Amino acid sequence: MRGQIRMADVSAKPATVREAAARCELVMKPATLKALRAGKVPKGEVIPAAQTAGILAAKQTAHLIPLCHPIPVSQIQVRFSPRARGLVIEAEVTTTAPTGPEMEAMTAAAVAALTVYDMLKGLERGIVIRRLLLVSKSGGKSGIWRRG
Amino acid sequence: MRGQIRMADVSAKPATVREAAARCELVMKPATLKALRAGKVPKGEVIPAAQTAGILAAKQTAHLIPLCHPIPVSQIQVRFSPRARGLVIEAEVTTTAPTGPEMEAMTAAAVAALTVYDMLKGLERGIVIRRLLLVSKSGGKSGIWRRG
Amino acid sequence: MRGQIRMADVSAKPATVREAAARCELVMKPATLKALRAGKVPKGEVIPAAQTAGILAAKQTAHLIPLCHPIPVSQIQVRFSPRARGLVIEAEVTTTAPTGPEMEAMTAAAVAALTVYDMLKGLERGIVIRRLLLVSKSGGKSGIWRRG
Amino acid sequence: MRGQIRMADVSAKPATVREAAARCELVMKPATLKALRAGKVPKGEVIPAAQTAGILAAKQTAHLIPLCHPIPVSQIQVRFSPRARGLVIEAEVTTTAPTGPEMEAMTAAAVAALTVYDMLKGLERGIVIRRLLLVSKSGGKSGIWRRG
Amino acid sequence: MRGQIRMADVSAKPATVREAAARCELVMKPATLKALRAGKVPKGEVIPAAQTAGILAAKQTAHLIPLCHPIPVSQIQVRFSPRARGLVIEAEVTTTAPTGPEMEAMTAAAVAALTVYDMLKGLERGIVIRRLLLVSKSGGKSGIWRRG
Amino acid sequence: MRGQIRMADVSAKPATVREAAARCELVMKPATLKALRAGKVPKGEVIPAAQTAGILAAKQTAHLIPLCHPIPVSQIQVRFSPRARGLVIEAEVTTTAPTGPEMEAMTAAAVAALTVYDMLKGLERGIVIRRLLLVSKSGGKSGIWRRG
Repeated sequence: MRGQIRMADVSAKPATVREAAARCELVMKPATLKALRAGKVPKGEVIPAAQTAGILAAKQTAHLIPLCHPIPVSQIQVRFSPRARGLVIEAEVTTTAPTGPEMEAMTAAAVAALTVYDMLKGLERGIVIRRLLLVSKSGGKSGIWRRG
Repeated sequence: MRGQIRMADVSAKPATVREAAARCELVMKPATLKALRAGKVPKGEVIPAAQTAGILAAKQTAHLIPLCHPIPVSQIQVRFSPRARGLVIEAEVTTTAPTGPEMEAMTAAAVAALTVYDMLKGLERGIVIRRLLLVSKSGGKSGIWRRG
Repeated sequence: MRGQIRMADVSAKPATVREAAARCELVMKPATLKALRAGKVPKGEVIPAAQTAGILAAKQTAHLIPLCHPIPVSQIQVRFSPRARGLVIEAEVTTTAPTGPEMEAMTAAAVAALTVYDMLKGLERGIVIRRLLLVSKSGGKSGIWRRG
Repeated sequence: MRGQIRMADVSAKPATVREAAARCELVMKPATLKALRAGKVPKGEVIPAAQTAGILAAKQTAHLIPLCHPIPVSQIQVRFSPRARGLVIEAEVTTTAPTGPEMEAMTAAAVAALTVYDMLKGLERGIVIRRLLLVSKSGGKSGIWRRG
Repeated sequence: MRGQIRMADVSAKPATVREAAARCELVMKPATLKALRAGKVPKGEVIPAAQTAGILAAKQTAHLIPLCHPIPVSQIQVRFSPRARGLVIEAEVTTTAPTGPEMEAMTAAAVAALTVYDMLKGLERGIVIRRLLLVSKSGGKSGIWRRG
Repeated sequence: MRGQIRMADVSAKPATVREAAARCELVMKPATLKALRAGKVPKGEVIPAAQTAGILAAKQTAHLIPLCHPIPVSQIQVRFSPRARGLVIEAEVTTTAPTGPEMEAMTAAAVAALTVYDMLKGLERGIVIRRLLLVSKSGGKSGIWRRG
């Protein structure tokens, strides 16, 4: 009956500059992508709403993910790039803290993608959010990591 | 300079029972999955933490996704099933409201998956969350929809 | 590996008027109580701050307690009564919903008490919050319940 | 030592369609307004960010304003219009509830204005948010009210 | 389709003591002000509720304003002064951070004013919140700024 | 009409490692405790849900308790121990900050207890949460304190 989940103790780790980047993709039909690119989505301009939602969500990460430490993010960027089959979302977060912003970047990308889905689901309910993943992280004892 | 995003007006729609189901998968190495299934993850018991986080996040959906209406959810279920290459997460949400709980189900699945990732990333940083999607929805004027 | 926690499904229950009352006590030294009653607490007026905090917390209940359903509270009252050894806090909540506001009343009393403790702990760190409990509830299929 | 603030009891009031509109203005220098209208603000596109923030804030109203009842908003609109000396922000909110969305409209306008200020303050710290007020409300026992 | 809004990158800025002060006014009829000053407002004691709401809101600033950095506030003060035609609200915030608490002070003043409005609107729906503005800020590279 | 509540100013205090421990007990009938220990509670596995809720609530402390400063918690532990008459909950929180995590520990214990109550109240509505109190704190100018 002992506590089953354990937050890492970061009290002995120094606050240093740390960065993380995450990404995901939305796969949609050509007609949906066309409406998105032409600004003809009935709910309005998708990209700025999703970008704002992703930035705000990154700042809520420690309130959503149980074992995340609250960190003072220094910068959050969320970018969108059209692809042949849909949209790529990339999120980059910087912090000066004893632990890195990996989950903040993942959360920003996820919530930006959910916002895009919400605004497009009236056009295409079957849109898929695929390959939400960490791209890279730097800073801290383990240094730089990049997806192979 | 007119407002660019538009929340759907649901004031004329009746409150009826509506359901939605969403899912996603996490793809991980056999050793990571083995640790998860054997309960040997350093951060502790992943599944109940992720389930709790997913349920709580579903209730925060309207605070995360700009154009979502706040709805009184009647039930939220988040389930986890091991697969050969990882884990499937399924979320089902029921509400009695003028609009359906599609985004609540999507958000529950996403935050549950992010929580699993957070607790396993010390073992395998490269885990991928794939195919986050709506499985089905029922209720409302458009009735039943199931992914083809 | 199936989901381990289960939110009750309230989708078949009618929305009716339901009430709940909770209470707790803070036990403190006579000098602390005297400072509180005389309005001589360095952090300022304890009661209105605790009352406001309790009311706001009642509205956050479903975001704090995993299996609570979000309900539209119709009224929240938080009252404070001095006793020989300290302070009694009583919270009453009313809702029109398919489930009752027991947890909202309990949460209001708890957060009001924590706020009192926070404002008095500079005077007496050892104050005890005791007997946080449900006093009564009414409405719904199970009708009226009162602590024996 | 009795509780000093009292939430109105809305449990006997019927849920009906209710609307409210609020507005405010930001007064700024011509050069700032020019940068805003030309899309040359270093922090980026102000209007969609402010609109998104205003919509999200309306849904947080009951968590910010102590005596506000949580209500299920049916629609939130936030609009921006340039004026000779700055910017007008108008917010309209609709709900089906036992109480009206006046505070939701006021909060949406206020947070949209604060977001505009935040994004422009690097250009002009002295921008003034003026005349935040309720424009009209309808529905409920007191019916239609319009500012004289 | 590149990201349209940009959070300032504060990762290279040192954490230093920074302060900001904001203010606004509420203009109301003499009878309303009289009720407020005499403590005869039906919803109860307005000032402590508004003060508590303003302090709590200052701590939510980064969750409300998209491009605000989360900062560890060291102190928040919200003060109220009666005037011939209404009420002045002043908010002062101190932090030790790489960026200043201007938006925290503005948000505290705004939410305190909205709370006053909410508690008085049953007496006078037409109350106006006017001249919400930054009074001064100090600390950081740009040093002291005071409204001219 | 001056502001009535005062947040302590911590801007001159150094950020040092500080710890706090809090605890409470739930008193229940033998049959309820037996169901809890046997994992036969209809709502599912109580302990991990309560532990997760307590950890998340600790990170919300400054948003619940008006005069609490936001602090970057380094670690949060919530533990559960069965007793003859019920359950003991202990919460320990560590931070590196200018003020200690006493309220975070108290809030974690309180919300964990409320979650246990919520999941067991279908079995026994009369469960009492008793003796919520601070056990010890260390760090800061006042150093170590332990309940006598």
